[in-house]
Amino acid sequence: MIEAVIPQASLLKKIIEAIKELVDEANFDFSETGIRLQAMDKSHIALSFLHLRSDGFSEYRCDRSQTLGINLNSFSKILKCSANDDQVQIKAADEAEALSLTFENSAKDRMSEFNLKLMDIDIDSVEVPDMDYQATVSMSAQEFARIVRDLGSIGEAVTIDATKQGVRFSATGDDGSGNILLKHQKSVDDDSTSATTVEITEPVSHSLALKYLANFAKAAPLADRVTINLIEEAPVMFEFKISDMGHIRFYLAPQIEEDND
Amino acid sequence: MIEAVIPQASLLKKIIEAIKELVDEANFDFSETGIRLQAMDKSHIALSFLHLRSDGFSEYRCDRSQTLGINLNSFSKILKCSANDDQVQIKAADEAEALSLTFENSAKDRMSEFNLKLMDIDIDSVEVPDMDYQATVSMSAQEFARIVRDLGSIGEAVTIDATKQGVRFSATGDDGSGNILLKHQKSVDDDSTSATTVEITEPVSHSLALKYLANFAKAAPLADRVTINLIEEAPVMFEFKISDMGHIRFYLAPQIEEDND
Amino acid sequence: MIEAVIPQASLLKKIIEAIKELVDEANFDFSETGIRLQAMDKSHIALSFLHLRSDGFSEYRCDRSQTLGINLNSFSKILKCSANDDQVQIKAADEAEALSLTFENSAKDRMSEFNLKLMDIDIDSVEVPDMDYQATVSMSAQEFARIVRDLGSIGEAVTIDATKQGVRFSATGDDGSGNILLKHQKSVDDDSTSATTVEITEPVSHSLALKYLANFAKAAPLADRVTINLIEEAPVMFEFKISDMGHIRFYLAPQIEEDND
Repeated sequence: MIEAVIPQASLLKKIIEAIKELVDEANFDFSETGIRLQAMDKSHIALSFLHLRSDGFSEYRCDRSQTLGINLNSFSKILKCSANDDQVQIKAADEAEALSLTFENSAKDRMSEFNLKLMDIDIDSVEVPDMDYQATVSMSAQEFARIVRDLGSIGEAVTIDATKQGVRFSATGDDGSGNILLKHQKSVDDDSTSATTVEITEPVSHSLALKYLANFAKAAPLADRVTINLIEEAPVMFEFKISDMGHIRFYLAPQIEEDND
Repeated sequence: MIEAVIPQASLLKKIIEAIKELVDEANFDFSETGIRLQAMDKSHIALSFLHLRSDGFSEYRCDRSQTLGINLNSFSKILKCSANDDQVQIKAADEAEALSLTFENSAKDRMSEFNLKLMDIDIDSVEVPDMDYQATVSMSAQEFARIVRDLGSIGEAVTIDATKQGVRFSATGDDGSGNILLKHQKSVDDDSTSATTVEITEPVSHSLALKYLANFAKAAPLADRVTINLIEEAPVMFEFKISDMGHIRFYLAPQIEEDND
Repeated sequence: MIEAVIPQASLLKKIIEAIKELVDEANFDFSETGIRLQAMDKSHIALSFLHLRSDGFSEYRCDRSQTLGINLNSFSKILKCSANDDQVQIKAADEAEALSLTFENSAKDRMSEFNLKLMDIDIDSVEVPDMDYQATVSMSAQEFARIVRDLGSIGEAVTIDATKQGVRFSATGDDGSGNILLKHQKSVDDDSTSATTVEITEPVSHSLALKYLANFAKAAPLADRVTINLIEEAPVMFEFKISDMGHIRFYLAPQIEEDND
């Protein structure tokens, strides 16, 4: 028996919107400690991890660990039937064939119940070792989404260069080329969500396919900031924190470019 | 000779937008008491009635009853040439071949005149007897439009169940199923436009095609509230009041479902 | 060596948006006094002129006159990578193969550099003599854009009649016909951007293809007002002033209509 309550439907909507760009179907692993999801995109190049801790829910109960296979488009359709401020209750019996979703408004005079069919999804799980990244860029998630969109109109790949001075995003295409430099801010107000900081042991440069970054950028509404974690010869990790509750992480393998600078 | 003045073009725009989803062409019956329109959709399943009382116009004159056949898409195109706050004057001579529309702004320095070609439309009129409905649901028109849109993403038909407790809208589709319950409010503020009330002599349940309801929902901008009137073995009637002026009513025959609950 | 600085990227964006509807590629002639562009649409019916005076830039330097051939869609794509409030620096070396564009935000912590490939464009330049127009209509640029859009839903051509009373725009199509009259305002507040004035020596009437006017109307965001300059047997000239900096002018030859009134 699983039962979890989220006070605002908008949060769950944003989480599903962020994942469903990469995969159509995914396994949600429910356990006592919370919910975990791991999904590989169809081309096996990008990997996404979601972790929602049980203490981030207003109510959470999971009698025994259970994996629920869910079609994310169907999930998204049903979530669109909730108002952003609705409370959402998720429920599944042991061996359930459907996930039950209940939306209730604060006046308690409107209650919706939806059943989402569950499915068996055969996925091998991948272990991603923790890394001592050489460079960690922390920047506005909205700015990240904008850069990805802007450079997407110029070329198909972006080179991310992290140095002590800041982080530079570059792209080249048929019309010309461009790069955007965000300077490292030495002293940052705690309140500031727009400042960029780069923590670095060694400069790193990686070239990445912009179409995956465009998918990752769908997670920007979830978080004020994104961190980009880089190390030579390993996938780049993008992390969006989900406030007081967990995070969503995306891993993307760099492109090997002959003319890589 | 017909002459009618409406102080705000936006009202006429909303009326035509609400009807043109169901029918391409319609007869407007002008008489001393006002304007009536009756239109059957192409598949002969949904019927719409419009009534605008003469006293709701700021000026109204109709020397003798006259029927004007109008292409609603053309009418809509011309109305889009008015500003929402423009005064609209409608004019037609006896045996006119065109309807004259004049839009004037409040500063009186901008005046537009349009002529809309009239046409002969051959339509049999249908008598709809007044009914003692078993259940009358009064609810927010905006909420109605939202439920129709939400359930339209789940299935093709909606079952409306009216009971003393409230009204429940349910739909089933390939991804799962869902239902939305609006509870009956015993005491309702006169100001409230969001509360739901159900007046009932006997519980009624009908299954209706959502695509027609999606068309009816185009009338939601016209009115704060919609009433849904149900009785066994007769079409469901949806009424949107047009403030101080009349109403628009839609009739839709229920679907006979084998698995109807 | 060319170097020019515009304090706000939004202005340059609007200028390019206004021209790129008419032509795909254009020559920008840089000289000591400023920038000039002349472009003929593909069907050789509409002509556009842009003039930006050097004193309208916050910095301007042009060592020797130079013509830069630019693909306007590529230019527009790169400009979309700037924020509206960014400062834009345009730079080209002598015999440059690319135009360099630098965008910088006011906090100076975000800097973007783009290179736009230049091209050789072979265009004959056209001389347009100055005219003593018979009628000059000055009106709101936004109102002009709206009339063009509204009448575009009625017909394919608009007749512009300028008289002492005002200016009338008329169109006829399959659904009907329409005309919009803007009355001449004798005394106009200097602040008013919505009033219409008609200076006239002789009434003029011209019929013009609405599809070109729809392109010209893309310049409306650049200016509060547009002037329409008419004279018998010569193209109509539409002028949008670019504040303190120059103007964009469009010339369109009237249609010869058999049933022209």
